[in-house]
Amino acid sequence: MRYFEITGSFTDYYQITMAQAYFLEGKKDTRACFDYFYRKNPFDGGFVVFTGLGDLLNILKDFSFSDEDIRFLGEQKLNSEFLRYLKDFKFRGSIYAPKEGDLIFPVRPVLRVEGNIIECQIIETLLLNYLNFSSLISTKAARIRMVAGDRILSDFGLRRAQGAGGLLASKAAILGGFDSTSDVYAARIYHLNVSGTMAHSFIQSFDNELSAFRHYADAHPDKCILLLDTYDTLNSGLPNAIIIAKELEATGKRLLAVRLDSGDLAYLSKKTRKILNDEGLYDVKIVASNQLDEYLIKSLLDQGAEIDIFGVGTNLVTGSPDAALDGVYKLSVSENIPRLKLSESIGKVTLPGFKQVYRLLTDDNGFYGGEVVCLDEEKDPEFMIHPFESDKRLEIKKYPKEKILLKVMDFGKILIEDKEPDEIRKFVHTQINKLPEEYKRFHNPHEYKIGLSNGLYQLREKLRKKYAKS
Amino acid sequence: MRYFEITGSFTDYYQITMAQAYFLEGKKDTRACFDYFYRKNPFDGGFVVFTGLGDLLNILKDFSFSDEDIRFLGEQKLNSEFLRYLKDFKFRGSIYAPKEGDLIFPVRPVLRVEGNIIECQIIETLLLNYLNFSSLISTKAARIRMVAGDRILSDFGLRRAQGAGGLLASKAAILGGFDSTSDVYAARIYHLNVSGTMAHSFIQSFDNELSAFRHYADAHPDKCILLLDTYDTLNSGLPNAIIIAKELEATGKRLLAVRLDSGDLAYLSKKTRKILNDEGLYDVKIVASNQLDEYLIKSLLDQGAEIDIFGVGTNLVTGSPDAALDGVYKLSVSENIPRLKLSESIGKVTLPGFKQVYRLLTDDNGFYGGEVVCLDEEKDPEFMIHPFESDKRLEIKKYPKEKILLKVMDFGKILIEDKEPDEIRKFVHTQINKLPEEYKRFHNPHEYKIGLSNGLYQLREKLRKKYAKS
Repeated sequence: MRYFEITGSFTDYYQITMAQAYFLEGKKDTRACFDYFYRKNPFDGGFVVFTGLGDLLNILKDFSFSDEDIRFLGEQKLNSEFLRYLKDFKFRGSIYAPKEGDLIFPVRPVLRVEGNIIECQIIETLLLNYLNFSSLISTKAARIRMVAGDRILSDFGLRRAQGAGGLLASKAAILGGFDSTSDVYAARIYHLNVSGTMAHSFIQSFDNELSAFRHYADAHPDKCILLLDTYDTLNSGLPNAIIIAKELEATGKRLLAVRLDSGDLAYLSKKTRKILNDEGLYDVKIVASNQLDEYLIKSLLDQGAEIDIFGVGTNLVTGSPDAALDGVYKLSVSENIPRLKLSESIGKVTLPGFKQVYRLLTDDNGFYGGEVVCLDEEKDPEFMIHPFESDKRLEIKKYPKEKILLKVMDFGKILIEDKEPDEIRKFVHTQINKLPEEYKRFHNPHEYKIGLSNGLYQLREKLRKKYAKS
Repeated sequence: MRYFEITGSFTDYYQITMAQAYFLEGKKDTRACFDYFYRKNPFDGGFVVFTGLGDLLNILKDFSFSDEDIRFLGEQKLNSEFLRYLKDFKFRGSIYAPKEGDLIFPVRPVLRVEGNIIECQIIETLLLNYLNFSSLISTKAARIRMVAGDRILSDFGLRRAQGAGGLLASKAAILGGFDSTSDVYAARIYHLNVSGTMAHSFIQSFDNELSAFRHYADAHPDKCILLLDTYDTLNSGLPNAIIIAKELEATGKRLLAVRLDSGDLAYLSKKTRKILNDEGLYDVKIVASNQLDEYLIKSLLDQGAEIDIFGVGTNLVTGSPDAALDGVYKLSVSENIPRLKLSESIGKVTLPGFKQVYRLLTDDNGFYGGEVVCLDEEKDPEFMIHPFESDKRLEIKKYPKEKILLKVMDFGKILIEDKEPDEIRKFVHTQINKLPEEYKRFHNPHEYKIGLSNGLYQLREKLRKKYAKS
């Protein structure tokens, strides 16, 4: 797979078989509404950073089936009139979404998609794939940013990423708070800062470490980062790096940084800092990498590690240990009738109807710690009801509120401006700063309250009774 | 990212900065050899299924930098002569590899890449990305196949996959032993069997379940699979499915299957089987899905669950819980000199020199349970030495041996035939059947022995002493 273009076939086959059934049934113009939402915060955290929207909209605006797609589907013995319909298929639906980079929470709608039932169905797989994955990685990156303070964070993950998913991961990492990536392709197409150091192989390929360092410094006098642990960090790598730093100094240049990639990073970084300082090399930064994640970085900093730049790979780009956000996409309206899916577990019963979400704000425009999901026509609900425990109610009249689901696509046209990654990244940072600490802690974070308006609650209960009887 | 082509920029930036240093140093034609290997079996298992080779070679044979790549790299203020060199860059190296679908084991070389040091370095990231991910997913699929026996396995994972990585995951799943995928795009480009059922939304969009089932059966009379749990599996879904089965029967058709997607799959499948059988619907199959993995499937079958087809999604395509294979790529020779990377841990010291791997076989051509890594010029080593405990030695003269690393690419040209996924899948199956049970068990599998030849062992020790002194 050297060449690749996202077309209509980036979908699950059942979307196609269902579409054929709708088509043959004369339901191709039936209006429908679907909600995208997720049920559980990843990483046992208290929130998710919502990203992937810009990429998704850019794909949807030109989403169609290629000739190859139609040929392949023809081989599956699908109906020929239906195949002709697919040949001219375009996504012409509408989408309501939060701002890219906003924080989102379980259970409540994140996206609302309206269109004919076939187009809503066919885009499901793509929508879930992009939003689930991008948001997962941005959330991981934001968690790492929360512990790293203003130290530099660089994504090193492409080699351990899941195929071409690595490109989206690098972008999502930047959106969530990283400063740069080693991934040249992603940096090019998404306008990200690219950065790189050197590998052990470079040093091994020379007869000795010092000569390897010297050649690298010759080639990159302004951006020289030297890797210390090929033979022995403190007894070989560091003394050799200091020689190079002095040689650079003699030509008016500075060694940018040294990199630690194995061993006890807390001990080695403190030792390295002291030795560098003793040599007057206060400005030479220390980069650390090696299977890092938010917990290890926090532990290193708690131990007083002297690290200025963290390189994070596998655990960032795969969203380890969760690897997937559990986002789903459920029908809430068709033919203007609110629809419901029952479940043995009340937590998995869906929310019917066209819905809006309002965030409760503090007087200074921060997160109060709750959001209400209501029917589109309900404007300023007086109280909200716990979605699964109806005796838990909260008066909400008094709180300032922010409307969360904004129309971002209309009849297949994008309504919002393309944002540069840096702009989204700053918005993520602002939102995370506004969220109270108790929702951000790693261990057992406080639960952000999601409630239903009375109108929505009554509608869901009415439908539950109806379908439970049928 | 709607459109995407793998070019030279699918790499880590440090490959480029190192390449520039080699180039400016006049080392662009220096010959080098790198080994790809991994250190730890994923999933606490006893082996890895090696896949991704065909895709990798197909990309490498045309690997080059696009105009966009060169423009972007130009913005990074790289040397202009070096950029001109990259503009004409092609991969013209040689690769030695096992057959795609063979089983591989930790520590020993999996791929050997020879070429000039720049080309070897630039392809590292792509090579690691493809082989690590594809092999991880094929291994997961093979584990699921081991417990599923000859039941049908279908990949449902695209929606929870890591971006476009999902396409490679679907192929890798088939190679590892799955029968079909829901992923239309992957099925089209890789010639895989595609399959699909129906979603809850289809049923919800009709006024009642029976009419939804009926419309689906009308559209797909020969491939009708009905989803039972939208409202109530046993009290609504199943009775309605039986009505449809009878209606199909009246027209000479058969209902293909029913699908369970929530609740207690062991209980529900047994109950469903009995009720279907009581109605004479012995041939209607039962599909089950819902967060399955090898452990859940084994547990379901141990409980006597009556399931004919398993749909597996998230845990398959993300390789949960590991999410990445820890494959690395290390320099072993440059300028015809064997090279070594030291480490505080002997387990991370690399193996120097041009190497070959021989598998020890039983008399009937099965896996004996060990492999020896030797220098290319050593032909039939008499004994092998434990890589980290030199007093552990095994006489190996008497065993038949199979040469594992075969030349698959020469000067950038592919030497092997393109294989269809089904052919690789069958080979995986054969190899797994040949591997003794104790290496395949999930809990604490027996350790497959990897040893070094005396020549390799002596070379490594000599270099360790040399570099430890320097």
